[in-house]
Amino acid sequence: MTIANDPSDLRPGERTLKTGFVLSDGMGLAIIGQIRSPWSNGNCPKNLREARARGGPFAVEIAPAYREGMLGLSVGDPVVLLYWMSGARRDLIVQAPAHRDCPTGTFALRSPARPNPVALAVVRLLSVDPASGVLQIDAIDAFDGTPVLDIKPWLASVDVPPDLQG
Amino acid sequence: MTIANDPSDLRPGERTLKTGFVLSDGMGLAIIGQIRSPWSNGNCPKNLREARARGGPFAVEIAPAYREGMLGLSVGDPVVLLYWMSGARRDLIVQAPAHRDCPTGTFALRSPARPNPVALAVVRLLSVDPASGVLQIDAIDAFDGTPVLDIKPWLASVDVPPDLQG
Repeated sequence: MTIANDPSDLRPGERTLKTGFVLSDGMGLAIIGQIRSPWSNGNCPKNLREARARGGPFAVEIAPAYREGMLGLSVGDPVVLLYWMSGARRDLIVQAPAHRDCPTGTFALRSPARPNPVALAVVRLLSVDPASGVLQIDAIDAFDGTPVLDIKPWLASVDVPPDLQG
Repeated sequence: MTIANDPSDLRPGERTLKTGFVLSDGMGLAIIGQIRSPWSNGNCPKNLREARARGGPFAVEIAPAYREGMLGLSVGDPVVLLYWMSGARRDLIVQAPAHRDCPTGTFALRSPARPNPVALAVVRLLSVDPASGVLQIDAIDAFDGTPVLDIKPWLASVDVPPDLQG
């Protein structure tokens, strides 16, 4: 499979993958739910901090088949959300974002454009309702309707580098 | 697609998805590299902390097509690795790990068994060599050869809940 690649849509210094784009078999993703947010193309905040400052409401809606997986989640828990940035191009390997002095590799950026557009956000649960599948969260910087892939408990003991742990 | 599901291989209280397992089209993953570690089935540490205590060497090898994406990564940087736990079952939605008093939903656990077995690890870069594609890292709790999906810079400003930031 080759992802569309428009050479005219590059900033100076940006580069795309040379070899097209090979997807691996047997690693298909399941959509476990979707993001609910006020954001759509044109009004989306740049990052989680900006989303938090501008305000919600924000939620994750878990699909019926996956709601039993919410057992043990509690109000106040910090969690990691993994979600799929469907609109992002996947072939940019060097990028020239406006806030950087020089072109930078995709793996040194948090840009949505990346070979696997899986985003992560560390958020807090404001409510947990297994019956409706709704988890209200403190902030999210993703479009309304974004597919959610996973929720994991956030643990300071492993999710903060040891030398930065309080 | 339905993932194999052996009902005899469940602990008391564990539950599997009722509806089989539907994979979404158009969300295939690319393998950007692989983990190098001393771990294989039978000797793998339970988590990153244990891996760090037991010691390496540990590395990520980036595949040739993706090495330009390393531009801007520096020794000492904390990064988030996303990798694919190929061996994990994907249909467990409630699990009964030995360290828990009662069965717990998959989304409240860091277990590798989950609908999308995408793991995340926050690690530090010990060396960066774009020519060979090798990134030495301080620790990893994944098997040797595990497929890598993404590398992102770890940022305290978004990857630690605001009220826990120092």
